[in-house]
Amino acid sequence: MMLPLGKPDPTLDLVLEREIDVPVEWVWQAWTDPESIKHWFVPKPWTVTECEIDLRVGGGFRSVMRSPEGQEFPNLGCYLEIVPMKRLIFTDTLLPGFRPAPKPFFTAGLFLEPNGKGTRYTAIAVHGDAASRKTHEDMGFYDGWSTVVDQMVAHIKATH
Amino acid sequence: MMLPLGKPDPTLDLVLEREIDVPVEWVWQAWTDPESIKHWFVPKPWTVTECEIDLRVGGGFRSVMRSPEGQEFPNLGCYLEIVPMKRLIFTDTLLPGFRPAPKPFFTAGLFLEPNGKGTRYTAIAVHGDAASRKTHEDMGFYDGWSTVVDQMVAHIKATH
Repeated sequence: MMLPLGKPDPTLDLVLEREIDVPVEWVWQAWTDPESIKHWFVPKPWTVTECEIDLRVGGGFRSVMRSPEGQEFPNLGCYLEIVPMKRLIFTDTLLPGFRPAPKPFFTAGLFLEPNGKGTRYTAIAVHGDAASRKTHEDMGFYDGWSTVVDQMVAHIKATH
Repeated sequence: MMLPLGKPDPTLDLVLEREIDVPVEWVWQAWTDPESIKHWFVPKPWTVTECEIDLRVGGGFRSVMRSPEGQEFPNLGCYLEIVPMKRLIFTDTLLPGFRPAPKPFFTAGLFLEPNGKGTRYTAIAVHGDAASRKTHEDMGFYDGWSTVVDQMVAHIKATH
């Protein structure tokens, strides 16, 4: 069980599990500091040009991703649960203030556990139907989310 | 500000404010006990035939409403914030476990404040666009939500 999400459903959810050699505290900081997010949150050569975080339940997560060709893709979501150093849950089905969003797609959960001096890192994408799960997988979920973990670890090591 | 929802937007939200002569504690109980919900949650002669409440963040609210002709309408939502005696926020844009829902419509906030021996009762329906707000208003939001407050107060007085 990954509470409050429940047990992942393989027909609806995508799960990435990694063991990384940086401590939980630094991973938490990387995920909650907007300046850090800009360094690693999308696979290079894409970039994050803007990021705002209002780290409270009902608060907003806003980022702008830019493609190598210069096209910009704004993303907006809402934090659902925040347990420092342990888990962070947010969704694009809601805007800040829990307002229903125009293009709901998925809820994301980040789960962290200390593992020696490192971190057991689990990211889950929870979808409403199998088609959304497949779309997300076809968009490159596993490669993309794994690449950004590598970028995050590299950024953490370069700055600590 | 009705945190975490923010300030209601008159173009997107519907707000019902009432002063009622039953205490906050009993109103909270009426909203969080499934057996109570069955007595007042829909305008009579409609009835609630089933109700289940998993009162935790990410937990589900499930009810089945039955029309006078016997047609049944299931409803499923997810709790977003629970502050006993003060506020209860839930949404039909998510299923239990924060899973995106197939027919997202609105987020609801119930705000309670003691007012002498009674309660200042504020209910807010938060929509994603003006069309959803209008649909909800045309469905009879003001009459319906006000009628069920009267039914709730009558039920509370009959059982305390």
